Amino acid sequence: MRLRNKPGSDEKIAKNTKYVVPNPESWKGKWQERFAKEQPIHIEVGTGKGRFITEMAKAHPEINYIGVELQMSVVVVALDKLIEADLPNLQLLHANGGSLAQYFEKGEVKRVYLNFSDPWPKTRHEKRRLTYKDFLQAYEEVLIPEGEIHFKTDNQGLFEYSLASMSQYGMLLQQVWLDLHTSDYEGNIMTEYEEKFSSRGQRIYRLEARYPKR
Amino acid sequence: MRLRNKPGSDEKIAKNTKYVVPNPESWKGKWQERFAKEQPIHIEVGTGKGRFITEMAKAHPEINYIGVELQMSVVVVALDKLIEADLPNLQLLHANGGSLAQYFEKGEVKRVYLNFSDPWPKTRHEKRRLTYKDFLQAYEEVLIPEGEIHFKTDNQGLFEYSLASMSQYGMLLQQVWLDLHTSDYEGNIMTEYEEKFSSRGQRIYRLEARYPKR
Repeated sequence: MRLRNKPGSDEKIAKNTKYVVPNPESWKGKWQERFAKEQPIHIEVGTGKGRFITEMAKAHPEINYIGVELQMSVVVVALDKLIEADLPNLQLLHANGGSLAQYFEKGEVKRVYLNFSDPWPKTRHEKRRLTYKDFLQAYEEVLIPEGEIHFKTDNQGLFEYSLASMSQYGMLLQQVWLDLHTSDYEGNIMTEYEEKFSSRGQRIYRLEARYPKR
Repeated sequence: MRLRNKPGSDEKIAKNTKYVVPNPESWKGKWQERFAKEQPIHIEVGTGKGRFITEMAKAHPEINYIGVELQMSVVVVALDKLIEADLPNLQLLHANGGSLAQYFEKGEVKRVYLNFSDPWPKTRHEKRRLTYKDFLQAYEEVLIPEGEIHFKTDNQGLFEYSLASMSQYGMLLQQVWLDLHTSDYEGNIMTEYEEKFSSRGQRIYRLEARYPKR
């Protein structure tokens, strides 16, 4: 699944350490120092080309955002958006969503966004889905107590799976939307993918869930 | 919402005490005596005209079924089906789903079915929805530990509400179907309502949830 790096990606990222931190492990527990203001941190796991997180950062200056993305080739695309927007409340992190505890202290993150994650429809690939229990545990390890996941997808199978997976993990569903774009939900920021697929008549599913008290 | 009784309903029910028990409170803790065999009891709350529960009873002779219905006018319709089918594993109970503890001992019921319950879409009618927390508690009061609810509906709003309501009550979603009739779910028995609305292209939503260990 990994795309080939564009030529010059490494150099571009190396030149923009203001936005993409070069040694993310060394910022564990200190992410607030990377931002202009100390305020709650929300992360997006699988930030892709970065439209969602960039627009969120513009719309919510009271939140610090970190876009986490494993694929270098799309980190570079997101970086272009961030350079253009020059936002004091957005950082990018080139890392794997399953290894968050390497980069964040417990409680350093207030909310996790998952948007249009790869559905991995085959049963044998269940462990790769970003709502598989191992990932839910990885998010919990860095979230505040009773931290939240906000998840949206156009993939019916992944949404069915995620409702059950989160529930069985012990999470509480706060709200569920089975057709987001016809609902009265306000403030939705569309990803690149969401705009494309919803314009073709695909339903968009969304949920907000929180971890239980432990 | 209550339909007017058909003339002769009371008399018909009074004549068929084999199927519709006249003093249901007196059978609390003794329902197994009403059946040919002692085996797990599943109830349907809001059994309507009775097609689902009658077909289930035919398909699953290893289960004892009780259809619970508040409206006398439809109890009579369900009774006609039951008289015709003459099943040893099906009973009808003219009662309110919120008052189950009057009729059943804790642990007397193994599973609750809810099918196409009235959606009561207005917020001020939330308490009337059969997946409102007070009803979830009423079911839990008669279910075995970790007992189950199997719920289906064509109503998107009610399904969204029910996912969140059950989760917040502490129930665990075991499986969710966002388009039952295109899924690989086997053994679905359609209600009268389900056949009508799915033939018009309405999606049918379904879930299986269980109560937590207490």
